[in-house]
Amino acid sequence: MFAFGLGLATRARDGALLDVFYPLPAFQPDAGLVQALGGAAAGVREVTDRDLETLARAFADAGVPEHAAVARGCIGAHGPCVLTVLEVDGPIAHIAEAYLKLHLLSWRHCLPNTLNLDGIFAVLPNVAWTSQGPMAPADVGEQALRARVRGDVLKVHAVDKFPPLLDYVIPSGVRIGDGSRIRLGAHLGEGTTVMHEGFVNFNAGTRGAGMIEGRISQGVLVGEQSDLGGSASTQGTLSGGGKERISIGESCLIGANAGTGISLGDRCIIEAGLYVTASTPVCVLDERGDEVRTVKARELSGHSDLLFLRNGRNGRVECRTNRTAVELNQELHAHN
Amino acid sequence: MFAFGLGLATRARDGALLDVFYPLPAFQPDAGLVQALGGAAAGVREVTDRDLETLARAFADAGVPEHAAVARGCIGAHGPCVLTVLEVDGPIAHIAEAYLKLHLLSWRHCLPNTLNLDGIFAVLPNVAWTSQGPMAPADVGEQALRARVRGDVLKVHAVDKFPPLLDYVIPSGVRIGDGSRIRLGAHLGEGTTVMHEGFVNFNAGTRGAGMIEGRISQGVLVGEQSDLGGSASTQGTLSGGGKERISIGESCLIGANAGTGISLGDRCIIEAGLYVTASTPVCVLDERGDEVRTVKARELSGHSDLLFLRNGRNGRVECRTNRTAVELNQELHAHN
Amino acid sequence: MFAFGLGLATRARDGALLDVFYPLPAFQPDAGLVQALGGAAAGVREVTDRDLETLARAFADAGVPEHAAVARGCIGAHGPCVLTVLEVDGPIAHIAEAYLKLHLLSWRHCLPNTLNLDGIFAVLPNVAWTSQGPMAPADVGEQALRARVRGDVLKVHAVDKFPPLLDYVIPSGVRIGDGSRIRLGAHLGEGTTVMHEGFVNFNAGTRGAGMIEGRISQGVLVGEQSDLGGSASTQGTLSGGGKERISIGESCLIGANAGTGISLGDRCIIEAGLYVTASTPVCVLDERGDEVRTVKARELSGHSDLLFLRNGRNGRVECRTNRTAVELNQELHAHN
Repeated sequence: MFAFGLGLATRARDGALLDVFYPLPAFQPDAGLVQALGGAAAGVREVTDRDLETLARAFADAGVPEHAAVARGCIGAHGPCVLTVLEVDGPIAHIAEAYLKLHLLSWRHCLPNTLNLDGIFAVLPNVAWTSQGPMAPADVGEQALRARVRGDVLKVHAVDKFPPLLDYVIPSGVRIGDGSRIRLGAHLGEGTTVMHEGFVNFNAGTRGAGMIEGRISQGVLVGEQSDLGGSASTQGTLSGGGKERISIGESCLIGANAGTGISLGDRCIIEAGLYVTASTPVCVLDERGDEVRTVKARELSGHSDLLFLRNGRNGRVECRTNRTAVELNQELHAHN
Repeated sequence: MFAFGLGLATRARDGALLDVFYPLPAFQPDAGLVQALGGAAAGVREVTDRDLETLARAFADAGVPEHAAVARGCIGAHGPCVLTVLEVDGPIAHIAEAYLKLHLLSWRHCLPNTLNLDGIFAVLPNVAWTSQGPMAPADVGEQALRARVRGDVLKVHAVDKFPPLLDYVIPSGVRIGDGSRIRLGAHLGEGTTVMHEGFVNFNAGTRGAGMIEGRISQGVLVGEQSDLGGSASTQGTLSGGGKERISIGESCLIGANAGTGISLGDRCIIEAGLYVTASTPVCVLDERGDEVRTVKARELSGHSDLLFLRNGRNGRVECRTNRTAVELNQELHAHN
Repeated sequence: MFAFGLGLATRARDGALLDVFYPLPAFQPDAGLVQALGGAAAGVREVTDRDLETLARAFADAGVPEHAAVARGCIGAHGPCVLTVLEVDGPIAHIAEAYLKLHLLSWRHCLPNTLNLDGIFAVLPNVAWTSQGPMAPADVGEQALRARVRGDVLKVHAVDKFPPLLDYVIPSGVRIGDGSRIRLGAHLGEGTTVMHEGFVNFNAGTRGAGMIEGRISQGVLVGEQSDLGGSASTQGTLSGGGKERISIGESCLIGANAGTGISLGDRCIIEAGLYVTASTPVCVLDERGDEVRTVKARELSGHSDLLFLRNGRNGRVECRTNRTAVELNQELHAHN
């Protein structure tokens, strides 16, 4: 079995599901867990309080008390409770599957770009995320009026297909300055700090510790000990720009207000304020500072130990390394 | 009649109005709607539950059941209910007028820069927008203490003259990643997505669909199918910089961390990381890449089919087009 | 006595303190206030309702009714009430001391960089800031499940060591577009507007009026009448970059998407989009526009009346002044 989750869902007034919260999603569950599910068929089904009691006992018998606690905790829920079982990692056909995969990413069970997320935009409805919980956007007006009449306010935090991570998962060992800027489905490695200016999309994130004050676009993965300065940009594949998926290696620094349209290897630096796009002509300098040759930045994609800067004297974009001209030439040729 | 609205207001402890929520503002109402108002004089007046019942019946008789529903829905309100009638689009003299015009913009009844907003800063009080609703900032301290004592928290989202759009209006067909960054009075065209990094001021926005990950300053209007990359900046007329009002045409792309101090026509691109101010010297290149001449960027304001970039080899700001040198010269001369 | 505060604290389920809210912190209290404390020893101690009654009477007798009101207001509190007394401004050893110092900064009793904040990161726990108040991050999962089951939602705004300013202090005469981006411990001078894109860290801020649409990093202080454009960056001492503490003088403008790694004197401008790091080579021009010489930007740190821009014709970073070449040369020599 690929994954399963027991979750609490919210319904719109027309009955459509708006979201599912899985307190403890299971990835590649072992035989005991699978047996406790009692041969539940793949797919999404609603479970009753009686089902939950049965599941709780089965989980307890299987020696997984934390799952038993979740099943018991869901008994008597205000909204529908769903059991989602995925035998394989196929395309997404149901909102409950989408939410389960987003949870798997944020629980660090799976790295970004390792899950089949085909169809996710189609199954996720656009939701108003309010102080009274998820709502269909069309229902907000009436609820806002009612709240006002009784002297209350309805706060609408966002209208989006994806909710904020922190309302569903609190990854261990992270700090997040502004939870409204991290989508559920973000993968934040242990030790990650995302400052208030940082942003992390779903299916994107960090492998381990790092200081993120910039934007990690969908599909982008940042290695350990790498920092993104304030407003630093990584080009994603969803909007504008590139078709290539970008990754950032370990111990990199993308300076404040800088950006990249290419992947970086390890120990790379882009100086503050410089945006390197894939087609930026870059003058490569060897360890002595002598010019080796000028290439499009995309030819440097994924290389390590590079320092990108714009020469303040002549505006030229330069890439400095700690290698000799001969090594550099070989490396660049090998890449052609 | 220019506009009217039936709204629910909030009072500070000293009796001053703090805001008005209009569930269904009416722009250039037809004769039936005007008649249902029963000759209500221009201006702002408080209405009683009895008035609301009369209005509800009149609206129902006039065949506008959605307005009747609002009038009925306001009956019994915790706070004051106001009827605001604007015969003409004059300067703003009352907070209830200011809120009505902000609603008209966000309901897409009026485009940015088409309403008389003179006086809006003077009539709008600075308000603490809290989890208990709008408050005078000076009243927050005591309420925060009381909330704490009873084991509750008073969350203060902002202290500002303008509230967030989504707490008053949910425009159809939009997605907004972080509602705290869009002010009431923003005009978001159908199909607009404002990502978490996007910002839209009042009296600013989009005509139609578009992906907004940058900042739309007061007075700036963005055409259909145009994208603003992450942290992209458009210079407004309120703070710093320009006196000229900027507009962005259709199918433009302002790259991530880029910015503009000039207007763009249609199909223009500013590459990621380049900030074009009105006084930036720009080297204009024809379709063959040959230099035509160097002009201040403001001379290119509003032109179409331009690609702005900074040459990575020599730091020169260039503007490339798909026109010949002769056409370009004529165009630039015509502009002088 | 250096400072004292009577505050309401929140406990995690394991008994640890998570935060302290001081409704009226006292800085360098006069003899009457000190006497009213009745010889309370330096340190942090919990006070009972009886203690609060005694304190309220003593404060009233001492002629400080606003302190008496706070003491009375705390009676019957849901959580613990603490009295924190600091005889001197020593290193921070207790969370209640940390919160008191953060309050002193935000109440404008002390300017950034004037308090001993050693140890603050060690004593501040990482807290989940939720719609139900502060929680230990590990406790959120269960509370989120319970909230869902009863048809409610638990909103988690942030997971951070520092809470938002506005949930603890509302400085007079400020506007803050998005409260989630200003940490408690920020010092916002009277007349400061922090727009939605602005960010202010603890121990950082403004001396007086100003329009802040950019980021004020830890340790950075901005003078009166200075503006930071949208996404403007000031390099802090905590992450990446510099070891030098940056300050910005009066009447400066850092343009949108610009940034600085050096201090600015008064009346300086950095044009939109230009990032000046300490090591940027800058060509200094005199009042006639003639080149004086090229220096590293750090040599210009703290100087007044400078305009930094990147020449659009050749990509060179230039610094223009209103001084003659002779004056400039002397000034730069004096700095060596």
